[in-house]
Amino acid sequence: MAMDIREEIPLAQRQRLVAFAHELLAESRRVIAQALAYGFSVEHKPDGSYLTSADVAVEARLRVLIAARFPDHGIIGEEGSAIRPAAALQWIMDPIDGTEDFVHRLPTFGTILGLHYRGAPLVGAVDHPLLDLRLTAAYGLGSSRNRDPVRLGDIENAVPDQAIRMMLSARANFTRHEDRGSWFDALTRRFPNHRIYRSCYAHACVAGGQADVMVEVGNRIWDLAAARLLVEEAGGRYVPVQDLEVAGVGRVLGAVFGRAGAVERVLRTLAASPMALE
Amino acid sequence: MAMDIREEIPLAQRQRLVAFAHELLAESRRVIAQALAYGFSVEHKPDGSYLTSADVAVEARLRVLIAARFPDHGIIGEEGSAIRPAAALQWIMDPIDGTEDFVHRLPTFGTILGLHYRGAPLVGAVDHPLLDLRLTAAYGLGSSRNRDPVRLGDIENAVPDQAIRMMLSARANFTRHEDRGSWFDALTRRFPNHRIYRSCYAHACVAGGQADVMVEVGNRIWDLAAARLLVEEAGGRYVPVQDLEVAGVGRVLGAVFGRAGAVERVLRTLAASPMALE
Repeated sequence: MAMDIREEIPLAQRQRLVAFAHELLAESRRVIAQALAYGFSVEHKPDGSYLTSADVAVEARLRVLIAARFPDHGIIGEEGSAIRPAAALQWIMDPIDGTEDFVHRLPTFGTILGLHYRGAPLVGAVDHPLLDLRLTAAYGLGSSRNRDPVRLGDIENAVPDQAIRMMLSARANFTRHEDRGSWFDALTRRFPNHRIYRSCYAHACVAGGQADVMVEVGNRIWDLAAARLLVEEAGGRYVPVQDLEVAGVGRVLGAVFGRAGAVERVLRTLAASPMALE
Repeated sequence: MAMDIREEIPLAQRQRLVAFAHELLAESRRVIAQALAYGFSVEHKPDGSYLTSADVAVEARLRVLIAARFPDHGIIGEEGSAIRPAAALQWIMDPIDGTEDFVHRLPTFGTILGLHYRGAPLVGAVDHPLLDLRLTAAYGLGSSRNRDPVRLGDIENAVPDQAIRMMLSARANFTRHEDRGSWFDALTRRFPNHRIYRSCYAHACVAGGQADVMVEVGNRIWDLAAARLLVEEAGGRYVPVQDLEVAGVGRVLGAVFGRAGAVERVLRTLAASPMALE
């Protein structure tokens, strides 16, 4: 079996990198707390989604900290242009995922952070300041929830579909760049115990075992920067189901992830939907 | 214009009753905190939903407190039989709504509490212990969120559908007792900004103005014990859209509620759906 390319990064360095991710998220919590306490400006992006001065401030601050510590690393963020796109190590961030929740003070917004090595995730984290909830993982070092180790058990075949706790993107995500609405319709019919939360919090629920499986479609790379590693390091499964280049937008991604048996069941449902036949 | 029957209860008594609701919810928080700290048993009801010793303990404790203070009031609760069903004043409670979230330590579970006078809501409250979030309302006394007054502004006609922040029941609720799945399908297509949370937390979001409208179908009376008053006292609108008697289950209810303009828009969508033609 071929060595995983991520073994090229020594264990001790991976430990230092995940410690640095904790430093970054402590700083993003400070910037977010200041914005909530002293106010922030709100505008709308061309696609109708929210952008606040807090999103911009968090990303700017994390970019400064990364550049100061690791001047040769690349940076990809939702609110700025890519820095050093050819670097082997790339920090990928969504400074505030669920900005609309942040604007309306719903505590389910959060920061998504990933560090990828030649395209493979090395460190991943999602952080929810108002819920005091942080999930982190590093390649080969396992996954943790507020520093407690997480293991995702499997789902037995005997567990009925209605007992599967499923997280979904909103239906609009399934149709935004290509029409996979039939997937949404099939999933909401077959799995009655479904919920639709913001990406970041839904990822935290699945990676922490509070939900069994998530189906994400129509996402950008920063939305999914942490999910794969969080789930795989906890013993779960992550399967890409969408990867397309959209003119004027960029790369659009989808994935199914969570407990292995639940992921299997979802993949069978998607394979049986009309979309998969095209 | 006929006097609202609720004027029969003097203002000072309504104030005492809402103060008592705060006492009850302070007690439910204590019982829930004890359960989270020291553990609780979990079983499944015949319909597959969760029941814990904490649900039972909260309801039992609130029943004792109500009976001690108001021995002539009726009590309806999810986890016990109705007491004094002929009484004019009826306390209605769901001790833990979103028990599955409670079991998995998702902070979006909560307690729903209502006091109805001859069928009309007089006091209503939803309480989320882990989010330190409580919404309360009393007839003629307004609605508050953690004791701050709430006013729900309208939605202008110029606001596009995609900007409407919608909360939905899971699709399974739309088909559980009669098939209104076409409503779910129409709503998730027309209003892309939809989320599916647990009832209690979704009600808190709508009643507090953090979401614009909620569509609830397939609920029991305790699920909706507080929503109408919370929304109406904040200046919003509440419109029943389902009320049927199901053998072996009881009364099943549905409603659309939130900012008036958003409720209007949803009602038009439902009216245009195939279900409404039957």
